[in-house]
Amino acid sequence: MTAVNTDLAIVSTLRQLPLFMGMSDMELKEILARVKCLYRKVGPGEPIVSQGDRSGSLWMVVGGTFTTTAYSADYDYSVTEYLHAPALLQIECAFGWQQRFTRTYKAETPCNLMIISKTELQQLCSDSLIFRINLLNILSTSLQKSRMAVWANAPKDMRDRLAHFLLSHFEYPAGHKVFKIRMERLAEELHTSRLTVSNTLRALAADGLLSVGRGSLDIPAAQLLRD
Amino acid sequence: MTAVNTDLAIVSTLRQLPLFMGMSDMELKEILARVKCLYRKVGPGEPIVSQGDRSGSLWMVVGGTFTTTAYSADYDYSVTEYLHAPALLQIECAFGWQQRFTRTYKAETPCNLMIISKTELQQLCSDSLIFRINLLNILSTSLQKSRMAVWANAPKDMRDRLAHFLLSHFEYPAGHKVFKIRMERLAEELHTSRLTVSNTLRALAADGLLSVGRGSLDIPAAQLLRD
Repeated sequence: MTAVNTDLAIVSTLRQLPLFMGMSDMELKEILARVKCLYRKVGPGEPIVSQGDRSGSLWMVVGGTFTTTAYSADYDYSVTEYLHAPALLQIECAFGWQQRFTRTYKAETPCNLMIISKTELQQLCSDSLIFRINLLNILSTSLQKSRMAVWANAPKDMRDRLAHFLLSHFEYPAGHKVFKIRMERLAEELHTSRLTVSNTLRALAADGLLSVGRGSLDIPAAQLLRD
Repeated sequence: MTAVNTDLAIVSTLRQLPLFMGMSDMELKEILARVKCLYRKVGPGEPIVSQGDRSGSLWMVVGGTFTTTAYSADYDYSVTEYLHAPALLQIECAFGWQQRFTRTYKAETPCNLMIISKTELQQLCSDSLIFRINLLNILSTSLQKSRMAVWANAPKDMRDRLAHFLLSHFEYPAGHKVFKIRMERLAEELHTSRLTVSNTLRALAADGLLSVGRGSLDIPAAQLLRD
């Protein structure tokens, strides 16, 4: 009875991921029965995966809240985002050139993971038309959006430029984010002075869009930066 | 006899595309025999596909040389690249959110196209493990590279910034490119003055990296801009 209830709970969780969109309950249950999944629990504050860890598999958080942190190429600044299940962890690292995570994920509350190995993932792609189309659609859409960015008009004033810089570093465009960056680095990235950065941050803070700490920016709701 | 020779020629052409990497001659010939392909010839100067045309299929140029042109979101500047067969045309537009070309392709010499419809493409993904893995790897690798860009250190001096701006707009990182952009727009994009842009372009021109025309930059070998 418990096993059946757990299955039902997982089916309804997976339904919320675009990767399983359009599948009937029956197909999802069949997948759960057939595909060997690894289930793992991670305690609060523990890493789920660390930057550089091998992916090459399908990693999903199916329960709990967690953070994802990414670092600049020179490790001088970082961005942490607060997320909740269900979520895929860097699906683009299951295949391709770089099959390692480029972000660190850490549990905030107890988290439940579901991991499908590369072999099982290949089998799933082979067996399920819907899964295969969903996966190709997710990767293609992400690539289309990512490639569009360079053709957008450069933001005009400093407030827009700063907001644009922050937004461009988020994996998910909404929610709570913490940017750890020195004011000097922000000035370098925006090709302006430290004073201009400081004034612009003060204006954004006055509008409640972020608060400025020592070497960090706390952004309560990233989506508000877009307006 | 001619049909056999044509088949052999196409097999050896497709071999050069990462999408068919790792397939035996036998598997490639079987694919050509089984999958319905549309073949099309395009004369010099004629469009192969135009920005906004429906993709949703696998488009390949299997013979000839051609250009690809992309426009900024406000159509104020454009970039043309000179390419040669064999090549895939925006594979990321076969699937996903936006199944229309975001670039225009035009024949320079007589070009031969090979088009595999979405239905046949789905069948190919279902039947061939190698094809499916290659497709997932190509999309994933492109996405990984595209997402990395935002974490790179901002280029420091104006010469690097200008080169970086130009390079970031190329689909292929090497070869002959023509950038149609006004000096004022370049200054806006780089958040600097028209005079600084003009001086920096003169320095790049003196090093033979580009030549400056009226509202256009001719870059003979884009790869040299990277050094």
